[in-house]
Amino acid sequence: MAELRGFMMPRTPAGLASVVPAPPWHYSGDVLTIEYRTEPDRVAGLLPAGVEPAEEDPGAVAIIWADWQSCSDSGEALLDPVRSQYKECFVVVRCRYGGETYSRCVFIWVDKDFALARGWYQGYPKKLGSIWMTRPVTVGRAGPRLAPGGAFGATLQANDRRLAEVRLTLTGESDTGGFVNALPMLHSRWMPSIEKDGGDSMAELVTMRSRDVDLGSAYTGTPEVELFEAPGEELAALRPSEMIAGYWRQVGATFDGGTRLE
Amino acid sequence: MAELRGFMMPRTPAGLASVVPAPPWHYSGDVLTIEYRTEPDRVAGLLPAGVEPAEEDPGAVAIIWADWQSCSDSGEALLDPVRSQYKECFVVVRCRYGGETYSRCVFIWVDKDFALARGWYQGYPKKLGSIWMTRPVTVGRAGPRLAPGGAFGATLQANDRRLAEVRLTLTGESDTGGFVNALPMLHSRWMPSIEKDGGDSMAELVTMRSRDVDLGSAYTGTPEVELFEAPGEELAALRPSEMIAGYWRQVGATFDGGTRLE
Amino acid sequence: MAELRGFMMPRTPAGLASVVPAPPWHYSGDVLTIEYRTEPDRVAGLLPAGVEPAEEDPGAVAIIWADWQSCSDSGEALLDPVRSQYKECFVVVRCRYGGETYSRCVFIWVDKDFALARGWYQGYPKKLGSIWMTRPVTVGRAGPRLAPGGAFGATLQANDRRLAEVRLTLTGESDTGGFVNALPMLHSRWMPSIEKDGGDSMAELVTMRSRDVDLGSAYTGTPEVELFEAPGEELAALRPSEMIAGYWRQVGATFDGGTRLE
Amino acid sequence: MAELRGFMMPRTPAGLASVVPAPPWHYSGDVLTIEYRTEPDRVAGLLPAGVEPAEEDPGAVAIIWADWQSCSDSGEALLDPVRSQYKECFVVVRCRYGGETYSRCVFIWVDKDFALARGWYQGYPKKLGSIWMTRPVTVGRAGPRLAPGGAFGATLQANDRRLAEVRLTLTGESDTGGFVNALPMLHSRWMPSIEKDGGDSMAELVTMRSRDVDLGSAYTGTPEVELFEAPGEELAALRPSEMIAGYWRQVGATFDGGTRLE
Repeated sequence: MAELRGFMMPRTPAGLASVVPAPPWHYSGDVLTIEYRTEPDRVAGLLPAGVEPAEEDPGAVAIIWADWQSCSDSGEALLDPVRSQYKECFVVVRCRYGGETYSRCVFIWVDKDFALARGWYQGYPKKLGSIWMTRPVTVGRAGPRLAPGGAFGATLQANDRRLAEVRLTLTGESDTGGFVNALPMLHSRWMPSIEKDGGDSMAELVTMRSRDVDLGSAYTGTPEVELFEAPGEELAALRPSEMIAGYWRQVGATFDGGTRLE
Repeated sequence: MAELRGFMMPRTPAGLASVVPAPPWHYSGDVLTIEYRTEPDRVAGLLPAGVEPAEEDPGAVAIIWADWQSCSDSGEALLDPVRSQYKECFVVVRCRYGGETYSRCVFIWVDKDFALARGWYQGYPKKLGSIWMTRPVTVGRAGPRLAPGGAFGATLQANDRRLAEVRLTLTGESDTGGFVNALPMLHSRWMPSIEKDGGDSMAELVTMRSRDVDLGSAYTGTPEVELFEAPGEELAALRPSEMIAGYWRQVGATFDGGTRLE
Repeated sequence: MAELRGFMMPRTPAGLASVVPAPPWHYSGDVLTIEYRTEPDRVAGLLPAGVEPAEEDPGAVAIIWADWQSCSDSGEALLDPVRSQYKECFVVVRCRYGGETYSRCVFIWVDKDFALARGWYQGYPKKLGSIWMTRPVTVGRAGPRLAPGGAFGATLQANDRRLAEVRLTLTGESDTGGFVNALPMLHSRWMPSIEKDGGDSMAELVTMRSRDVDLGSAYTGTPEVELFEAPGEELAALRPSEMIAGYWRQVGATFDGGTRLE
Repeated sequence: MAELRGFMMPRTPAGLASVVPAPPWHYSGDVLTIEYRTEPDRVAGLLPAGVEPAEEDPGAVAIIWADWQSCSDSGEALLDPVRSQYKECFVVVRCRYGGETYSRCVFIWVDKDFALARGWYQGYPKKLGSIWMTRPVTVGRAGPRLAPGGAFGATLQANDRRLAEVRLTLTGESDTGGFVNALPMLHSRWMPSIEKDGGDSMAELVTMRSRDVDLGSAYTGTPEVELFEAPGEELAALRPSEMIAGYWRQVGATFDGGTRLE
């Protein structure tokens, strides 16, 4: 019998049906980041045992919207863009493990299955949502310019409830796109046992960081954030107590695997 | 009793619930156009009584994908982009009426209700579909550049069947974005009578053209088109017999009403 | 030149591409109705000039969820259910015109284009939304029975915001499915002129009622209603001041045209 | 530091944000099953190493559509049906392992994230799709009755391409709902290592079967099946060579964990 092929499920004779092809995965997209502070114990409460809050600014949070085009090495899906474009909204905090400081994604919503599957592989705790973000324009009157005064909105809905909305009004260019999501990621990959009360079959701590990062000009501005309560969600617990800053930038990057720490 | 307010339905006391606010409507977006020839009688068959085929190149067809951000004068929806962004795929032919040559949209699919309502108002025969088009990128490896060799795909699905897919491989810059959709539009606005076998309550011939057109650089390339049969659709009747050209360009424009001809 | 064929747009040589085939339209589905009272001037404010509030109980409102299967006479779409199933949430009030009392739909959301087009034809002011309603079950533990204690929920989302949610807990069978939506409909069919500030090209007052109504057993219960504010909506203005009753029933009916009154 | 809580990701302080609550999961729904034979090596090719084809009728395939309402023990999601209803289309074959014959799901598409996550947990290789199936009716003319001559259609779309459509025309009642999906499931739970070329972090063989199965009357009929080629899919390789039968029935069941075999 021939071996089953494919990166993830379903595995098949030709290996073409996997919900997502094997890495490397390439990404090009627009990224809107709002950084703010919440009560530090809200961040600490989202860290797994053995992972500590960051030593500096432990209540810092980034809520990020991204509109991605992505593909594997063949690039084949780029010509069938329903299979290469997706949007996401995610929340990142910082934490400390083994003497290093990391970024960690604690909530994330995407709008395609290939993106959701990548996330489950990488330890991004992805759910489905409806994600929208204002696009900058260079012609016409239906959108902001990437210039002072340009106003951007971004929203998140899941299970037919709005969960978050933010605004960013640009004030100028920036040297950075933020600090909260700028470190190697520290993620947990959990899969409960199929056996009742069997604990976890997989419980790994992993780290990863992008390579071939290709950054466009960054812009900064004045942020506003609103988070809304909803059943089945705990996003609103990360309520802002103080705004830090907001950023908009185009980002290219490649993911090609990570390292298991535990 | 106060008057009901609102541009379209529903009309309400505050006039805020209309499926779309009153014009002017501003648009900024990416437009991918493929022009080709079909048998001229296929085009002629789609024209209403009293409207003739164009005198030159009467089999010319444009199939166009657009990814728009749009708003009314307040611009308020730009910050809630679920209400300002939409994608569309539409088919345009040329025709002749009253001694003038016009463009005419014969099929169109969009993915939001506000866009569908605008179309019913303007005589664009809109239905809902799922529309995707490759985006050019300036960073990273997940997309084409606006440069020779850049390859773009675009697809249309409605009622869970793929209806069209095209590819455009750029060869260079262009002075034009095509000729088929470049004329004032000649559209029919039809609404059948509520009475059985009552004919049409509204049967108008109207024309309109955009103002404040603001064009980005145009690119041209080598096009490919596939149209697929589906129940409830007649798009595939416009099968290509000869490719003309393909274009990609950013377009800004404003719609602010038209003129009734009949 | 052959004539264009088709009930609504687009009209084509074969007449198959119309967003919806010609009536008669047949419907079979589940209908959950909540009736309540709001301040009567909220209802009156939604009536067009020349239409008066109902003489009795002028603040009565019905908010209704329906999960329909529908088709035209050929029944062809029943085998391609993406083209025959849709859900809707709508709000009905009563009003008086020419000495008769009517029902009138003042807000409505659906989730398919063929349903939206039917509504624009019939004067139902349809927009798109995401509509869900609990289904009764006869096997298993994942749903209520049609029996006392059976609890049903129903929700409406549009533009990524939840607009309404209701609950109905059954208390027993009922002789009726409610009184607010039980009269002939009195609807306005409006289409603004394509000319700027040109008023309406079509402004009709029409009436219609279903034929071949085929009703299943009706159930009544205790209702709860919550309406939420949202930009671009005025539904929340119809806030409940007093609950009347709630109903669940299966309904079959046929629409085959109406009568123009003005 | 308090422990993170939640069945699957994301895990949080209150344990409410998991993409799906812990089992038991209860299901009530409509199930349409078509059984047919394909070439046995097509089935064998989808089995992992160590799992053999069934001894009898090794080319038998079931393609199944289900329209579910589902919940965990609290039943709370039943009143917010966007979180409890989903549809799925899945393909089941039989196989042999350790001297026992099992059912095995080789392809499956669902339309909600909570259902997708359950599948990844159970070894159902779920992807997202758009799934539709005709509903039987008891009132009106818009649907088949559960009686001889009743005609049902069901369709599957993913990534904007139709992948499958079937029809079932009822001939009468049945003692059974089919044999291909009637055995305990034998599933693989795979998760590749985060490390490049690291093999699988999790590669389990598990079995599970429902409890508290509560079956409605079964109907049988004449089936038709069409499978369509698409990039990123291998469903069409399971092309029918001979129809066996088709069934429609309402099913209730509870899932409450399984057993790891390897």
